Amino acid sequence: MRLSRLLRNKIEFSHLKDGKLHMVDITHKMKSIRYAAAQGKISMSRQCFDEIKKTTSGIESSYLKKGDIFSVATVAGIQAAKMTPSLIPLCHQINLTHIELDFELNEDDCAVSIRSECKCSESTGVEMEALTAVSVAALTVYDMCKAIDKNMVISDIKLIQKTK
Amino acid sequence: MRLSRLLRNKIEFSHLKDGKLHMVDITHKMKSIRYAAAQGKISMSRQCFDEIKKTTSGIESSYLKKGDIFSVATVAGIQAAKMTPSLIPLCHQINLTHIELDFELNEDDCAVSIRSECKCSESTGVEMEALTAVSVAALTVYDMCKAIDKNMVISDIKLIQKTK
Amino acid sequence: MRLSRLLRNKIEFSHLKDGKLHMVDITHKMKSIRYAAAQGKISMSRQCFDEIKKTTSGIESSYLKKGDIFSVATVAGIQAAKMTPSLIPLCHQINLTHIELDFELNEDDCAVSIRSECKCSESTGVEMEALTAVSVAALTVYDMCKAIDKNMVISDIKLIQKTK
Amino acid sequence: MRLSRLLRNKIEFSHLKDGKLHMVDITHKMKSIRYAAAQGKISMSRQCFDEIKKTTSGIESSYLKKGDIFSVATVAGIQAAKMTPSLIPLCHQINLTHIELDFELNEDDCAVSIRSECKCSESTGVEMEALTAVSVAALTVYDMCKAIDKNMVISDIKLIQKTK
Amino acid sequence: MRLSRLLRNKIEFSHLKDGKLHMVDITHKMKSIRYAAAQGKISMSRQCFDEIKKTTSGIESSYLKKGDIFSVATVAGIQAAKMTPSLIPLCHQINLTHIELDFELNEDDCAVSIRSECKCSESTGVEMEALTAVSVAALTVYDMCKAIDKNMVISDIKLIQKTK
Amino acid sequence: MRLSRLLRNKIEFSHLKDGKLHMVDITHKMKSIRYAAAQGKISMSRQCFDEIKKTTSGIESSYLKKGDIFSVATVAGIQAAKMTPSLIPLCHQINLTHIELDFELNEDDCAVSIRSECKCSESTGVEMEALTAVSVAALTVYDMCKAIDKNMVISDIKLIQKTK
Repeated sequence: MRLSRLLRNKIEFSHLKDGKLHMVDITHKMKSIRYAAAQGKISMSRQCFDEIKKTTSGIESSYLKKGDIFSVATVAGIQAAKMTPSLIPLCHQINLTHIELDFELNEDDCAVSIRSECKCSESTGVEMEALTAVSVAALTVYDMCKAIDKNMVISDIKLIQKTK
Repeated sequence: MRLSRLLRNKIEFSHLKDGKLHMVDITHKMKSIRYAAAQGKISMSRQCFDEIKKTTSGIESSYLKKGDIFSVATVAGIQAAKMTPSLIPLCHQINLTHIELDFELNEDDCAVSIRSECKCSESTGVEMEALTAVSVAALTVYDMCKAIDKNMVISDIKLIQKTK
Repeated sequence: MRLSRLLRNKIEFSHLKDGKLHMVDITHKMKSIRYAAAQGKISMSRQCFDEIKKTTSGIESSYLKKGDIFSVATVAGIQAAKMTPSLIPLCHQINLTHIELDFELNEDDCAVSIRSECKCSESTGVEMEALTAVSVAALTVYDMCKAIDKNMVISDIKLIQKTK
Repeated sequence: MRLSRLLRNKIEFSHLKDGKLHMVDITHKMKSIRYAAAQGKISMSRQCFDEIKKTTSGIESSYLKKGDIFSVATVAGIQAAKMTPSLIPLCHQINLTHIELDFELNEDDCAVSIRSECKCSESTGVEMEALTAVSVAALTVYDMCKAIDKNMVISDIKLIQKTK
Repeated sequence: MRLSRLLRNKIEFSHLKDGKLHMVDITHKMKSIRYAAAQGKISMSRQCFDEIKKTTSGIESSYLKKGDIFSVATVAGIQAAKMTPSLIPLCHQINLTHIELDFELNEDDCAVSIRSECKCSESTGVEMEALTAVSVAALTVYDMCKAIDKNMVISDIKLIQKTK
Repeated sequence: MRLSRLLRNKIEFSHLKDGKLHMVDITHKMKSIRYAAAQGKISMSRQCFDEIKKTTSGIESSYLKKGDIFSVATVAGIQAAKMTPSLIPLCHQINLTHIELDFELNEDDCAVSIRSECKCSESTGVEMEALTAVSVAALTVYDMCKAIDKNMVISDIKLIQKTK
């Protein structure tokens, strides 16, 4: 039933026109304010989690300067959001007007939750930018902590809100 | 006890020296053949999964030319692996000698599994390159299919093998 | 006579003002919909041409998965169009709203014809983007086929239409 | 007969392994000095050609500062050669040790000939780098002169020498 | 007293919101024509200065083709201005509508003065673009001349005008 | 006398061969460990300096989270060092094996001193990488603080050590 609805509504893989790859034509779409929020998390060992926690709770860590991991991951996420059209082949070039990342320590499952928000005033949505920001921020946390834990897992990357 | 072992073994967050951010000094490390494999998956609705499946099993899809989604995602993953030092701030610049991506349709959980392999002959490992390839390939699958399903979830991104 | 007309009409090399290199000032030009189409071709040996042909006509090739060469070249052309201001020093930064590439097999002269179309809604034309897309797509076909034929020739790259 | 030789010699499209796109594994190839030279040309109207000629022969042009067009095109070609792995999806990352471009005015056919040379000491050839340098240098000449002539044609881009 | 004024006026480090790094939200700021000019200089030995001077005054240099150093530095400065959001982490992406660089020989203090101007029609200023253009142009002069003088000093990089 | 010594020693602008721009041929130069250190400073108002000082001395700032400015500037400097061959047209591509940045508060002249170190094991020096790291780190400090002080001046950027 869902399939028949699909067929009736002519929903299609957007990057293919008559079966041919292309960057979708948005020339005649009106510009409007676009917003998207995405999230994801990176799970790690208790030991690794505890070291990260020290850096954010003001307890002295022998290993980490306060805030550095999340500062670096924030910068990486922001820069990645701007690079989205270079990374995702069929994404349009857009000038983002806002990028923000948040990190939260989840004690119970030894994980860092990452949340991003992107905005622009363009003719196409910014969900890929928000998802890319979260993904690269998570990879950066992995890179910063991999000397302690190589078995971290990045998961639950998804779009949580999209408005225009 | 694990913490004390950590202290004894002087395992440290590698990108911080005396609490200061830096790109780790690998000047005197010997070059050797480095290999890393990573994996991840993107889960989606049955409808979206079935459309992708048609494109790979030779059944005619109204929506997709054969192989395109995975060709585009392969190219995106390969290009992203090469861009890793631009994306992950403290990663070293390395010249990869091999990049490969595999996609597998998991019927039971309506997901596409993605696996990457990277190699180089350098003084540092390639796990970040392999993880980045998988992440960006998954984001590209998301981008190609988002007109059908906006609730896809990218998860289980992890290192599965690393040798030198 | 043509020269005198030039002088009278004050047509000038646009990137030089009083003999000084600069990126032309388009601050006060109105934004409008810009379109450009470009084409080019890559000529090759009969053997190489025949292998490519198999991949597009549904005949099984021992060498090539269906569609891959043109999928990869399409992605390369689209990404190159977006990178035009990084490649061509005095080009303006523009956000393209559409990029499309077409490939055609020319049996008679053993060549692949490539055609690109670009659009934007900006203050400057997109001919350089369309020409860059064709050039890089042709180079990508060369790269994909060079194990079979190293004597391929890229030619006839030109603007075929420009409107605003 | 050529085809059967191909089959016997197992020459294959190099970027496909068992029909799957990948970046060819060169991990175990020895590094050696690689050299490639490529050429191409851009043909134009007599008027446009004459303006360029003035800039290089020391005659005062009202339109162009001496040497600028070829200085800009040289820089563009050099930068493009370095960017080749970002442009051509399956190209390996290599560190070029030499890049050089030459421009020659061909009076008879109103064309600028462009020649490039690239060198490296790596495990893979540099023909794509040399071809890319020529292509982008030609596009830059087009861009610098397009206010005078929009009908320029870029052609005869080919590899002229390759050694290791 | 200046501090109390600061506190009263709630002037703040703009890239931090409640102490958190982010790319400032300019979604609701009106687009307007923005202009910024910056300057800087590179000081060098008399010998190095004299060699550069020959290249610009029409006297034959054994070392330098006329105009090349400033052509290359102009191109580098223009390209760097366009790359500003990739270089300065929290800068917004903007499409510049004009970039211009000027070089002046200061006989008295053996220095090359560099001046840049940038314009756009966006929601944020272009001072970082102008400052980046000057900085990278100065670095390029350093690179071109370092075989003669390794003790050059880049200084006095500052914003000289900003309007909207 | 210095000039005659120059002529005798055949010291030349390195990027020009017979008056032609090129990327210097280093194919036959031996690889060795290269080190360069550079420095520079950014001067500012007392008010701006005091706000930055709070962030590093543990005193609570209303404006800045601890360490953020220098974390962001460190990341920017490291990323810029890696991007040097994209920024400085005739620079060779090298894979840096170490990048480090230091920031020091100079109370007396209200300035932040920036020092960088780069290393590689290649056939060419890394002074341009070290100078670029300092320049972009200084620009990033400017960007982070410009809401408080627009009259900051970047100066004294120079090479302080180079060994191989």
